[in-house]
Amino acid sequence: MASTQRSPAELDASKLRITLAQELKPIPPSNDVHFGQNITDHMAFASYDPIEGWSAPEIKPYGPLTLYPASSCFQYATSAFEGMKAYIGPDGEPRLFRPAKNLARFLRSASRLSLPLFAPDELLNIMKTLLRVERRWIPDQRGHSLYLRPMIIGTRHNSALLWIMCSPIGQYPSIGARPLSLLAVNDAVRAWPGGTGEYKISGNYGPTIGPMQVAHQQGYDQCLWLLGDRVTEAGVMNIFVVLKRDDDSVDLLTPSLDGTILPGITRESVLDLAAAHPSRTVLPGLSKSLHIYAGERDITMGGLQTWLAEECLLEVLVVGTAVVIQPVGRIGYKGVDLILPVYDGGLGPVGKALHQRITDIQYGVFEWDGWSVRC
Amino acid sequence: MASTQRSPAELDASKLRITLAQELKPIPPSNDVHFGQNITDHMAFASYDPIEGWSAPEIKPYGPLTLYPASSCFQYATSAFEGMKAYIGPDGEPRLFRPAKNLARFLRSASRLSLPLFAPDELLNIMKTLLRVERRWIPDQRGHSLYLRPMIIGTRHNSALLWIMCSPIGQYPSIGARPLSLLAVNDAVRAWPGGTGEYKISGNYGPTIGPMQVAHQQGYDQCLWLLGDRVTEAGVMNIFVVLKRDDDSVDLLTPSLDGTILPGITRESVLDLAAAHPSRTVLPGLSKSLHIYAGERDITMGGLQTWLAEECLLEVLVVGTAVVIQPVGRIGYKGVDLILPVYDGGLGPVGKALHQRITDIQYGVFEWDGWSVRC
Repeated sequence: MASTQRSPAELDASKLRITLAQELKPIPPSNDVHFGQNITDHMAFASYDPIEGWSAPEIKPYGPLTLYPASSCFQYATSAFEGMKAYIGPDGEPRLFRPAKNLARFLRSASRLSLPLFAPDELLNIMKTLLRVERRWIPDQRGHSLYLRPMIIGTRHNSALLWIMCSPIGQYPSIGARPLSLLAVNDAVRAWPGGTGEYKISGNYGPTIGPMQVAHQQGYDQCLWLLGDRVTEAGVMNIFVVLKRDDDSVDLLTPSLDGTILPGITRESVLDLAAAHPSRTVLPGLSKSLHIYAGERDITMGGLQTWLAEECLLEVLVVGTAVVIQPVGRIGYKGVDLILPVYDGGLGPVGKALHQRITDIQYGVFEWDGWSVRC
Repeated sequence: MASTQRSPAELDASKLRITLAQELKPIPPSNDVHFGQNITDHMAFASYDPIEGWSAPEIKPYGPLTLYPASSCFQYATSAFEGMKAYIGPDGEPRLFRPAKNLARFLRSASRLSLPLFAPDELLNIMKTLLRVERRWIPDQRGHSLYLRPMIIGTRHNSALLWIMCSPIGQYPSIGARPLSLLAVNDAVRAWPGGTGEYKISGNYGPTIGPMQVAHQQGYDQCLWLLGDRVTEAGVMNIFVVLKRDDDSVDLLTPSLDGTILPGITRESVLDLAAAHPSRTVLPGLSKSLHIYAGERDITMGGLQTWLAEECLLEVLVVGTAVVIQPVGRIGYKGVDLILPVYDGGLGPVGKALHQRITDIQYGVFEWDGWSVRC
């Protein structure tokens, strides 16, 4: 189309400018840190306005933002984010786990809030450079990693800011594979059909803080979010159950993506790997003869109770970027605790196999379908 | 309780410090301005941290905030607000309309997001002082007002910022009493029982931007938010219907506060005033013999269609702080437009009577139960 008007600039990693911090922070021991407690020296940053489009991206010292009180991120919570981790592989190189999946979801979340769009590949390139700059912050112990938080917010007049900040984290939630306890909650509803539960937008999280505090006060680690009787998510994680079949094969089930469930990258990876066993690969510690029927199905509190009573509920697992895979030992529901099967070391055989395999892939010890991406 | 520990300071209007702007902005003509287009010279401001509590509140020049990227307002949308208006009364004094109602709701919204609490009365006193400082910005034409936006956001480590900004507005949405057109939407669901629709929190609004754009593209002014077949809100307004009874009395109905509906101050005022007619007061233009049965009832799209077919649907109204009361002329639903009764000048007799009375109260022309509060 012939036009003299310049169209708004796309996000372009080739324009990246780097300004290094004058003074670098000391790196804290990574074994007891949580996201946000320690932010690294630098952040990636770009701004957008509807006329000029995306600014040249920058890597610059981590520091405060200047925002007008009338910005749409305050008024309308136009704010979306991602959570990813970088790991050090055996070759000493930083790696990301299926980053294209996260960045595609980031784009979908931004789009749901009518925020400006960007090419995920460009953002990935910016992220890779950021990781090279912050290389010294990536812990090289197994189980430790550098958490990455890409974020986009609306400011004024359809403008926006995008950034990536980094925070080293140890074992999350620093309790290793200890079985989690969940308080089933259905008075506060996290997500509903036609709502925004399938997007990683900030507005989904604020209303969960109060119910989480109640759960903690009652001695539970996290909320199990119900929609009526139906299980949706646990804390900020997807949930799986492992059920014994009569023939000693097992079902590995998770709620289907009906709009109330965040399409987790770990969730998808668990489904993929379970389906690959034993035909494409044998998962660590599992028998070749064990067939895993991996799939999506509604999970209800009534169903959990029935499976427990029938002694076919083998494992309840929560999965997510932060925890990878963690067992659930107890679910409080209507004043009664459902006591779930526990195993030596925390995870049952299926959870353990999947945890081992996924972390092997994340740390570059096991190559699988290009899931681990070297930076 | 004997304790040597100082407890965190409460929000305290008596500590208010005022720093006036060096240079004042020219005041734009108020007839075509919307909220946010022009912000006044000053804002009220206070900050909170869990140890010190609330800072001494300030009135200071309106300007940018400095926030760290890891602030919870970005990550978790810990952000709540209010919308209020100041009017000039016949005595030339600024007035607020039932401000205690808004500020009590503000506190509830903040509390829902686990943000720090404050005494609404202290905030009202700060607001009154702000209005005296910004007196020249309050338009004195009828229909014009100074819009006030109190807002609270979470920052880091359970700290928070609270501010009030002001923006002069003319007739909103600058179309006077022209009947609005609404597009009924039930694929995107604004609020859900157990969700947060009854709170004025920012996270409720971001996801509505996209559907609103779709409505505009299809030639509608606003979305009518459905839950299944059930009408909840219209745009950011509550909705009412006026139905004819056989005996020529009328029903004035609005959906009940089931958690999906913002408990609007205009909504409550409409219900109160309608119930007061004719026993306590006769509403302008209405007959003393007209009885209005004002109350809460489910309104469904099927119900609207039936009432239309039976010719008992007299008026459909949307109400809110911004519009006060506006008629609805058309609702698009499943590809068909419901054409609603329209009246000369826009509003029907009940809507007109209520609009006249409420604005008379707001502008201090009619005294009613202390609803109009002089500053």
